[in-house]
Amino acid sequence: MIIILKQNAAQESIDRLRSVLDKHDVKINEITGAHKNIMGLVGDTSHIDIESLMAQDCVENVQRVQEPYKNANRKFHPEDTVIDCGNVKIGNGSLQIIAGPCSVESEEQIITTAVAVKEAGATMLRGGAFKPRTSPYSFQGLREKGIELLIKARSITGLPIVTEIMSAADIDLFADIDVIQVGARNMQNFELLKALGRVNKPVLLKRGLANTIEELLMSAEYIMSEGNQQVILCERGIRTFETMTRNTFDVSAIPLIKQKSHLPVCADPSHAGGLTSLIEPLSLAAIVAGADALEIEVHNDPRSALSDGGQQLTPARFAEVMEKIKAAAGFMGRSIV
Amino acid sequence: MIIILKQNAAQESIDRLRSVLDKHDVKINEITGAHKNIMGLVGDTSHIDIESLMAQDCVENVQRVQEPYKNANRKFHPEDTVIDCGNVKIGNGSLQIIAGPCSVESEEQIITTAVAVKEAGATMLRGGAFKPRTSPYSFQGLREKGIELLIKARSITGLPIVTEIMSAADIDLFADIDVIQVGARNMQNFELLKALGRVNKPVLLKRGLANTIEELLMSAEYIMSEGNQQVILCERGIRTFETMTRNTFDVSAIPLIKQKSHLPVCADPSHAGGLTSLIEPLSLAAIVAGADALEIEVHNDPRSALSDGGQQLTPARFAEVMEKIKAAAGFMGRSIV
Amino acid sequence: MIIILKQNAAQESIDRLRSVLDKHDVKINEITGAHKNIMGLVGDTSHIDIESLMAQDCVENVQRVQEPYKNANRKFHPEDTVIDCGNVKIGNGSLQIIAGPCSVESEEQIITTAVAVKEAGATMLRGGAFKPRTSPYSFQGLREKGIELLIKARSITGLPIVTEIMSAADIDLFADIDVIQVGARNMQNFELLKALGRVNKPVLLKRGLANTIEELLMSAEYIMSEGNQQVILCERGIRTFETMTRNTFDVSAIPLIKQKSHLPVCADPSHAGGLTSLIEPLSLAAIVAGADALEIEVHNDPRSALSDGGQQLTPARFAEVMEKIKAAAGFMGRSIV
Amino acid sequence: MIIILKQNAAQESIDRLRSVLDKHDVKINEITGAHKNIMGLVGDTSHIDIESLMAQDCVENVQRVQEPYKNANRKFHPEDTVIDCGNVKIGNGSLQIIAGPCSVESEEQIITTAVAVKEAGATMLRGGAFKPRTSPYSFQGLREKGIELLIKARSITGLPIVTEIMSAADIDLFADIDVIQVGARNMQNFELLKALGRVNKPVLLKRGLANTIEELLMSAEYIMSEGNQQVILCERGIRTFETMTRNTFDVSAIPLIKQKSHLPVCADPSHAGGLTSLIEPLSLAAIVAGADALEIEVHNDPRSALSDGGQQLTPARFAEVMEKIKAAAGFMGRSIV
Repeated sequence: MIIILKQNAAQESIDRLRSVLDKHDVKINEITGAHKNIMGLVGDTSHIDIESLMAQDCVENVQRVQEPYKNANRKFHPEDTVIDCGNVKIGNGSLQIIAGPCSVESEEQIITTAVAVKEAGATMLRGGAFKPRTSPYSFQGLREKGIELLIKARSITGLPIVTEIMSAADIDLFADIDVIQVGARNMQNFELLKALGRVNKPVLLKRGLANTIEELLMSAEYIMSEGNQQVILCERGIRTFETMTRNTFDVSAIPLIKQKSHLPVCADPSHAGGLTSLIEPLSLAAIVAGADALEIEVHNDPRSALSDGGQQLTPARFAEVMEKIKAAAGFMGRSIV
Repeated sequence: MIIILKQNAAQESIDRLRSVLDKHDVKINEITGAHKNIMGLVGDTSHIDIESLMAQDCVENVQRVQEPYKNANRKFHPEDTVIDCGNVKIGNGSLQIIAGPCSVESEEQIITTAVAVKEAGATMLRGGAFKPRTSPYSFQGLREKGIELLIKARSITGLPIVTEIMSAADIDLFADIDVIQVGARNMQNFELLKALGRVNKPVLLKRGLANTIEELLMSAEYIMSEGNQQVILCERGIRTFETMTRNTFDVSAIPLIKQKSHLPVCADPSHAGGLTSLIEPLSLAAIVAGADALEIEVHNDPRSALSDGGQQLTPARFAEVMEKIKAAAGFMGRSIV
Repeated sequence: MIIILKQNAAQESIDRLRSVLDKHDVKINEITGAHKNIMGLVGDTSHIDIESLMAQDCVENVQRVQEPYKNANRKFHPEDTVIDCGNVKIGNGSLQIIAGPCSVESEEQIITTAVAVKEAGATMLRGGAFKPRTSPYSFQGLREKGIELLIKARSITGLPIVTEIMSAADIDLFADIDVIQVGARNMQNFELLKALGRVNKPVLLKRGLANTIEELLMSAEYIMSEGNQQVILCERGIRTFETMTRNTFDVSAIPLIKQKSHLPVCADPSHAGGLTSLIEPLSLAAIVAGADALEIEVHNDPRSALSDGGQQLTPARFAEVMEKIKAAAGFMGRSIV
Repeated sequence: MIIILKQNAAQESIDRLRSVLDKHDVKINEITGAHKNIMGLVGDTSHIDIESLMAQDCVENVQRVQEPYKNANRKFHPEDTVIDCGNVKIGNGSLQIIAGPCSVESEEQIITTAVAVKEAGATMLRGGAFKPRTSPYSFQGLREKGIELLIKARSITGLPIVTEIMSAADIDLFADIDVIQVGARNMQNFELLKALGRVNKPVLLKRGLANTIEELLMSAEYIMSEGNQQVILCERGIRTFETMTRNTFDVSAIPLIKQKSHLPVCADPSHAGGLTSLIEPLSLAAIVAGADALEIEVHNDPRSALSDGGQQLTPARFAEVMEKIKAAAGFMGRSIV
């Protein structure tokens, strides 16, 4: 950690800063510059709050040198983490394809879709039971009933199931779910993250609309610091000024997360673009950029969907896209099992 | 609602769209253009899901003409809403000043600060008991104990208290709080919003880091559609590419929200800029732009603060800023009572 | 074009709007809604200024239905445009690799680098002679001398050359250049675009840091409307809140531009990420997303580079990346000739 | 300047870095940390290119401690710069109001408007002769003829004139203009900036849509480093995800620029919001935040304007807004002369 002192800082304030730092087990190295002085802190600075240093009168700026995440940091855990998700593994060099509808709407809908995506080569089933919608007047999901239907679809197809949680109060309902998803809007719902940190189950953590890669890793850290190390990170597009797409798919996040962290990375081309025509190119881009999994919205009849109709693929189109996905996985030496 | 059809759309698909629209009580007007055809829907379209229309093969785009919010919409509720917050009112043409520390840290800290901000002219007390922090290793708040201390500070100063909730599971702990705050990171925690919609208590709803003004109004709609009409909206800065400030204070949001909605508007110059030097100019800017309340972080000893030290004012500096705030309120014909 | 009228608009103002529209050769279709009325304009609306309609008292909003670009629009020019760039073609289904240093620094540097990139498989040479730098104290380029050295490098390697223009006043200096590049900061330097529209030479037009895809197409339209149809569009990353990368590479722009326009698309993985470690994954992502060309910064000794040292590849590393690029091109059925 | 070295950097690479640094007149101070080593450079680092350091294998990150601008830096020029603009001064504690149409359209239009804005209290006249428009099919300005008309309007009203330049090739046409404006899209047109640096005339430099405050100051530095110290900086809104306004007015930029620089600051509430209803609140916000001047679009008949009709005020509405502006100026102790 580096502390840049203000020009002409009062000695009294510098002494006060020094006494604050003395409470931490760090050594202070000083550099005297022409205009500004600098302190370099050597030792474990992870528990030092930058803001508390910024509040000292003599401090102009404070910069971290070490990453603020530990459990998620590849430096302290060089080998890739592999996560068991029911009968498939994410992070072991394979490519897992999580497909299914935005929302679970009915038994017929989820089972028809599940059978179709399995047929096309998907290895996991997604479907929303609890739905975060911008408008309170939009369909809010079947909730408990939706989870029951997902479990039924799994019993028929054998596909492990991924579904989103919106409140820690509902955790018990997810006891028989294979992977619990945290949506973009809850990426910094810290109470929910802590609760999921005390569960022994994989968590698929989506990047928030306006969250940096470092903040995503810090949210993973919330889960991991409570004990649960089974976190899969998901790039799903960020909010920018561009309006032609729903979000801007930050494909760079995939290789960067894999450099910084040992956790597996999933990509969601459906939400990133918000356009069915982009699902194929964004899926291929994610694969060659290093993604371990893709999450793709497929609906047996998108024109009748109760949510996200405009970005869900038909089973027929999904089957076509899967052919390209399989080829790209082969090109990258990844198997889809 | 306007539906723009694709060039050369198949008649079969148009017929299907028409049958979908027939389920809603709307009249369809068609415009035949040189290249594209357009349908204008007349009637109540608030329950029509745009995505479900986008999913029709023949549809190129769908645009709303009416705002998607009703309870929060000034068109249906022209007069300003006034909200009772303990013994003060927000939205009645006055200017309320909510001041206090980022976090409640100790009895001495909160009471000293509360007495000081009251002395300087603040009319409400803020203080965080549950703290959303980016890092799990940062101070997380005193939680229940923090709420007790706030109540003690109120009993001494008479200032109504505002404090943040992070989970619907904690609602009972807020029974004796005057205004429940929803932080930026929870603006789209819809389960929390719904729970607060069933409480009879003012909610101070902060705009999310990457949320539009319309989304903020839709989140207010979540609370209001459940019954609770006591919502105060708060502009606290949005995330942009600029790095010199913590966030970019969107001062335009204040007059725009007041045009679109009858709900009162608060501004938070402390989080918007993240710099103590900006609190005075941003406070004045918010007042002349029409804000009904300001929320300002003040700490009896910012250099020892456990969070946000770098943006909290000392009581002495706050007293100076309050003199300018009072003058600006006077200039705008608003009283601080 | 659709005009949404204000609720309770005065008849006098509507009459005035109608008289404004009468000056254009369009037919007005009206839809009377419960709350708002709508006018749909049928005919050629490309010369109607939206702002002039917005200025009418009765108008709430105006929305285009047709794209505002014509020459660049795939609807009016369905087949792909192929552009001759010296002895290579861009847009004919091949993949062209434009490689070379950020800046031309010396004869030895540009020739060594040119020979090395050709050896590795690059098909065109880039190098900056006129350099747009944020600071006036940074190296500004060799200017005329730089262009001479590029021409020398071409005579040795046979690689066509691409270099950036910063002012229309310099156009004559580019007479012997194969492709003139317009940098991101000049994407809306309209005087420069018009001047390039009167030149018979390919233009590589880079997307501005904060410009939408539609604005990029409108800038192409500036060049094309003056006569020059040889425009190559380039995605090079946009500015967002993320700080881990220099810019956010908007990979979706590649397939979207190809849907909307017949012009070829290039991608610049060097500037997009600003990190050498991202050049390989972003190159592969661009290829599978449909790019017709890549522009990659390579320097014979990046550690001594006078600009952009941190994102330029060494020839050795470039040769490795080229192996992957060739494989990805093969996977997509594109040849690198 | 601080250099953070990679963990386990090779000694050979560190030696090379040291030899690079030896070429500059700086002293190196080293801090040896548990995981990383740091070098602090003492001396004049303004000519060291960060990128050239980033290119060294051993370097993880480089951070500036000193601001990269000198001429524009308040540290080296503590007193406010006052700029003579014809018969008015900007930066001397007064508030100057620059008003007039987006575009000069005809003699009648500019003279009628000029007389009206003077009558209402404006102290300078604006009007675009060269117009940067997104579409080549939109009105591009009267060019030379527009400048003549502005000069005529000045001779009648006595108001100094401000108008935009789009190319260095046109500089001679601006010989009799009082203040030359550089638009947002040309903020980093460095060739134009350098040319303006060799002119002895005030330059009103607008912030680019996606440019940071530091980049704005660096663009001022381009002009100043060539000799011309008469630069006025202008906040006119930045591009964000919010769509309700044309841009997001960054009111914080006003006090921040005044802290960092001695140059005067102007605000443009017309372009920032793009809505006539926001001009009054944004003008007041800018004034209380410390602006030295405002630039406001006024048109004698906005409904007939050839550009920006939707954001220009009528003379009658401008006169009302001026009453509020005068009151706010009085409140801040600024005179409008």
